[in-house]
Amino acid sequence: MENNIMEYDTVALDDEKSAVVIIDQTLLPGRTELISLKTAQDIWDAIYLLKVRGAPAIGVAAAMGIYVLSKQIQEEDFGDFYDRFREYKDYLDSSRPTAVNLSWALKRMEAVALKAGRDEGKSVAEVREALRREALDIRDEDIRVCRKIGENGLGLVKPGDGILTHCNAGKLAAVKYGTATAPIYLGHEKGYGFRVYADETRPLLQGARLTAFELHSSGVDVTLICDNMSANVMSRGLVQAVFVGCDRVAANGDTANKIGTSVVATVAKHYGVPVYVCAPTSTIDMETPTGAEIRIEERPDREVTEMWYKERMAPEGVKVYNPAFDVTAHDLISGIVTEYGVARAPYSQSLREIMEKKHASSGLL
Amino acid sequence: MENNIMEYDTVALDDEKSAVVIIDQTLLPGRTELISLKTAQDIWDAIYLLKVRGAPAIGVAAAMGIYVLSKQIQEEDFGDFYDRFREYKDYLDSSRPTAVNLSWALKRMEAVALKAGRDEGKSVAEVREALRREALDIRDEDIRVCRKIGENGLGLVKPGDGILTHCNAGKLAAVKYGTATAPIYLGHEKGYGFRVYADETRPLLQGARLTAFELHSSGVDVTLICDNMSANVMSRGLVQAVFVGCDRVAANGDTANKIGTSVVATVAKHYGVPVYVCAPTSTIDMETPTGAEIRIEERPDREVTEMWYKERMAPEGVKVYNPAFDVTAHDLISGIVTEYGVARAPYSQSLREIMEKKHASSGLL
Repeated sequence: MENNIMEYDTVALDDEKSAVVIIDQTLLPGRTELISLKTAQDIWDAIYLLKVRGAPAIGVAAAMGIYVLSKQIQEEDFGDFYDRFREYKDYLDSSRPTAVNLSWALKRMEAVALKAGRDEGKSVAEVREALRREALDIRDEDIRVCRKIGENGLGLVKPGDGILTHCNAGKLAAVKYGTATAPIYLGHEKGYGFRVYADETRPLLQGARLTAFELHSSGVDVTLICDNMSANVMSRGLVQAVFVGCDRVAANGDTANKIGTSVVATVAKHYGVPVYVCAPTSTIDMETPTGAEIRIEERPDREVTEMWYKERMAPEGVKVYNPAFDVTAHDLISGIVTEYGVARAPYSQSLREIMEKKHASSGLL
Repeated sequence: MENNIMEYDTVALDDEKSAVVIIDQTLLPGRTELISLKTAQDIWDAIYLLKVRGAPAIGVAAAMGIYVLSKQIQEEDFGDFYDRFREYKDYLDSSRPTAVNLSWALKRMEAVALKAGRDEGKSVAEVREALRREALDIRDEDIRVCRKIGENGLGLVKPGDGILTHCNAGKLAAVKYGTATAPIYLGHEKGYGFRVYADETRPLLQGARLTAFELHSSGVDVTLICDNMSANVMSRGLVQAVFVGCDRVAANGDTANKIGTSVVATVAKHYGVPVYVCAPTSTIDMETPTGAEIRIEERPDREVTEMWYKERMAPEGVKVYNPAFDVTAHDLISGIVTEYGVARAPYSQSLREIMEKKHASSGLL
């Protein structure tokens, strides 16, 4: 297929063929291939096997998936339809139990089915149509939020700037644009000529395998570096801004993101380079006061000692510490870029204002 | 063989068998095997193929190697002996042209041969004996210097401390003790109970393959981490000191060392953790005023994109920046630990004093 992945959405609905079409991310960066998911097993496997990954992309895939499956339900009575719907929903929900967006999207689809079929007494055909629209809405919202983050982030940099990013908060984690990559893609469309430095992001190399891949295939000037080279490129004046994604932002601005983010932020502060966290408001958690309350997942040793390798690269039996995330303290963060604007310190105030803005607009951009 | 590598020197002379005995480092961390180098080709290959690596270890291997080869020279006339000696020397010298210690050690051996054979008119047997003693002196000096660095470094930490190190400035780069590892080994002998964190050190993973290996096999409590986890362990209060080696120290204290050292130093400064550079005075270069004058070697892209891996982990054609070293600014360094004591800021003064102390003692500890 065409080697510019910007031509394709990470997750798309092919309604005629009753399929969810995704870029199979397990084949990247070696091969770019679209695959069609038609059965419940197809969709479950795709999520479980990380053929589609990244919170927003998983949510969209699940929403489109449950819609596609609803077309396979023959029952005309809503009660019978709903029983089958629930079976599919629970099955898909089990594919990655800890992925918040997965159950969030499936719950949202279920609510739409119940409203149309039970509360409003609509026909199963009408329920299906409501599900189709909801799945496409979830997709469109993701695209709109990412694009808006891109616009807000683009105002923070200028043509020719060097931008460093860590891990993959890219198009491949969403539908289009991504979050940390959104300002980069929008700038690229406008001919800004950014020079992007992508941290490879050990241990799982999402930066090398996904970010370097998607930016390179989109024609963006991207240079892959190891995680320990950030001070080198910053000391040479090559980086004017850092854009990273986030897994959770606490009420005081402390941000949990892929392990190594706080190293980048510390080095950036030392060299006077601003650090911007790109955060859809859905990741801002006003119930968590500070980063200290965010539990950091520890992952298997073998990701560090042997995964991806021909042979072990560390001795048998050596102790390994492999935290998946770290917390970047709010005082290392220059701005938190959301779809409702850029929050600045003091974050406890600016994030509250962002959330109020969101609620005032009923979450509609 | 016994799995505690502290029982063996990295490089040793087996005079009876006329062989240089080394730990084959290309088999690490999978297998610990001693191999005997007897021919010129054996020795050349061992250095070229990195079976022995690390500046001090290469110097000792070359010195012992040229002595072993001198025993194979049949000529009894010194002029004829010297011609053959020169051939061997030039051949060994070509195994790693940029390794300063290699040519330094070979020149030192040549000077001894010329002094004994040409200037003092000694017999070829006596010249050989002088060469043997010189090779062992070079080894003994390395051991003494490393041990002294260990003693000086040990005074900077206390029992139970967490110590972070980067790359391999270990026993495997020297004969015994290493430089950055010397305080760790000496403390281990005294039951200090250090907890050591070893950065894996991308791209070539010397920290995972060599440092984690040698410390683990020596019974030291070592935990392997990825390079981007330093902020995580420091923020948790697990690290009380950083010990690293160096490739070159400029007159103002700026230090060139393996890529990533300056990232560790920046993060350490942020968390108030002292950073100690372990530097034999042979690496202090008073002719280089600052780090800005140190040229940084750039290495092949494929070290980042494919070496060690089953498959490419970055897309074909992506740009890569792969500097082998970086410069850590002197203001990030808490002390430079030499065999003549610990230099502290201002380094332009303290390093000069260290070098004067060395010259006053004629380089004899």
